[in-house]
Amino acid sequence: MVIDIHGHYTTAPKAVEEWRKKQIAAIDNPALGLRVSDLQVSDEEIRTSIEANQLKFMNERGVDVTIFSPRASFMAHHIGDFQVSSTWASICNELCYRVTKLFPGRFIGAAMLPQSPGVDPASCLPELTKCVEEYGFVAINLNPDPTGGRWTGLPLTDKSWFPIYEKMVEYDIPAMVHVSSSCNPCFHTTGDYYLNADTTAFMQLLRGDLFSEFPRLRFVIPHGGGAAPYHWGRFRGLAQELGKPLLDKHLMNNIFFDTCVYHQPGINLLHEVISVDNILFASEMIGAVRGIDPTTGFYYDDTRRYIEAANLSAEERSAIYEGNARRVYPRINAILKDAG
Amino acid sequence: MVIDIHGHYTTAPKAVEEWRKKQIAAIDNPALGLRVSDLQVSDEEIRTSIEANQLKFMNERGVDVTIFSPRASFMAHHIGDFQVSSTWASICNELCYRVTKLFPGRFIGAAMLPQSPGVDPASCLPELTKCVEEYGFVAINLNPDPTGGRWTGLPLTDKSWFPIYEKMVEYDIPAMVHVSSSCNPCFHTTGDYYLNADTTAFMQLLRGDLFSEFPRLRFVIPHGGGAAPYHWGRFRGLAQELGKPLLDKHLMNNIFFDTCVYHQPGINLLHEVISVDNILFASEMIGAVRGIDPTTGFYYDDTRRYIEAANLSAEERSAIYEGNARRVYPRINAILKDAG
Repeated sequence: MVIDIHGHYTTAPKAVEEWRKKQIAAIDNPALGLRVSDLQVSDEEIRTSIEANQLKFMNERGVDVTIFSPRASFMAHHIGDFQVSSTWASICNELCYRVTKLFPGRFIGAAMLPQSPGVDPASCLPELTKCVEEYGFVAINLNPDPTGGRWTGLPLTDKSWFPIYEKMVEYDIPAMVHVSSSCNPCFHTTGDYYLNADTTAFMQLLRGDLFSEFPRLRFVIPHGGGAAPYHWGRFRGLAQELGKPLLDKHLMNNIFFDTCVYHQPGINLLHEVISVDNILFASEMIGAVRGIDPTTGFYYDDTRRYIEAANLSAEERSAIYEGNARRVYPRINAILKDAG
Repeated sequence: MVIDIHGHYTTAPKAVEEWRKKQIAAIDNPALGLRVSDLQVSDEEIRTSIEANQLKFMNERGVDVTIFSPRASFMAHHIGDFQVSSTWASICNELCYRVTKLFPGRFIGAAMLPQSPGVDPASCLPELTKCVEEYGFVAINLNPDPTGGRWTGLPLTDKSWFPIYEKMVEYDIPAMVHVSSSCNPCFHTTGDYYLNADTTAFMQLLRGDLFSEFPRLRFVIPHGGGAAPYHWGRFRGLAQELGKPLLDKHLMNNIFFDTCVYHQPGINLLHEVISVDNILFASEMIGAVRGIDPTTGFYYDDTRRYIEAANLSAEERSAIYEGNARRVYPRINAILKDAG
């Protein structure tokens, strides 16, 4: 079985984006009076949006299951206040839930949280609880910078995040650390901002001792771990200077990297440097990089090809495709069993 | 000949740091009345600080020449106003100049600029001119985020930077893109902030068309290009989506990466993905990562070992060690000739 642990609903029906635009317009003009019920999306529209896109590619590429969450760049936690984020998160999560119901066993949900700059992360708990208990979601996306590239918040090791971590441990769910769109002209959302947030999250965790406090807490750092594997020597050396244990012990029982690295040499480096136990198959399809690589003739984000071509044993490949996902996202096991 | 294009004066005599502390204290308390002449550093002190450190390692590692600039993390352009930065840059550049005079042919200068948040980059031109014309410096360090991690400035493609670029072209000198210390608790200076700035600079240049305007402009992106080579497929794909030419044509006549990647697999990936013509030998010794790698028994930053062990021909190795540096930093040729 091949499980892609990183997919977003980037192809939601146009009405969703239109509603969001109106929601944003209403922030400064409440007279516009927008209601959640103004957004109507039929099952048929959802089905089409998935069948023509993600499901088509999954079938072509031999991917059985995708862990599916709301579109990352559209979370835009920096827009509006907590109420704006809360309504938007609720809509986006419900849409993903409907995808999981329409395609049982093919899509499994992961939640966007209603984060908002400067607002206590504990405010996200009701949405998180609903998504796990009512929707059967198996993970959350946690935005380490809800300011959208202003980075005026606090590191992931700050105690303000702990209520979320406690809930994650209680539910035995991991968080994918994932920023949203950049509102900072210095950063390009999917070019550098995503990767930088990955690297920063890794370094925040390296500097801290979060996993002494939460030994069962698990983070997935997407996009191949940002710059971390390429600079693994640097990070090992910095851990040493900071008096931390070896990275294997300090972090690597709790941190996992996905395979959203869009060329063969990058994937080769990833599995050369990082233990196979810490690598989870993912493509972020359909996402940031949608074109065909002229040097290979295949889609950049067809990451399964790179894993197939990598110097891995059948066992290692199976761990990356399935075994690690079942371990890091244990709630998928019951869902996949039910789906047969 | 082996030229290390990335060394900072991280071992300056203690009096320099003491003076800087007083300068910072005087920002809020001008009555402290600090003068530049209060800082006295003898040639003997400078000589010792270099002989016991950088020169010792250069000799041990077979490095002939280092392009040497003020300590990056101490530039701290975010502290104080332009006058504070100006005085500090002047002191730091003069110290590096003295190093180049004390060790002719072993150290060649590169300038720190007196950047200051929100201040027109053109204000840096007098210091830049002095360093090239009077000190014989061959390059500058350009800080893409003088706010120290707040990132409230403008991308490197903004026209406000053009006066510096015009001067760089006039003098035929490259800029190393290098941030300073982070004052943002989200970021660790040498862990993620440096690498993120490298990746961001690369993406800013990718999004723009700066080299159409300045075809002779050259940037060195240090620390192995941040995350760029590891995610080369992503960046190729994004260039494609943004309607840019292939990266080789769009950027790689003007952008160069150094070899400050502190483990063998990283260096292997770098030269597998990036043309040897765009790779310049460097170690940033003595810098961020000072320890010995327990897996090899050698210093993490002894990057020459990785180049020696990499699958490169003698010609390729020579380009990385010397030829490319002579091409990208053409002013070193006359200096090395004079030094014999």
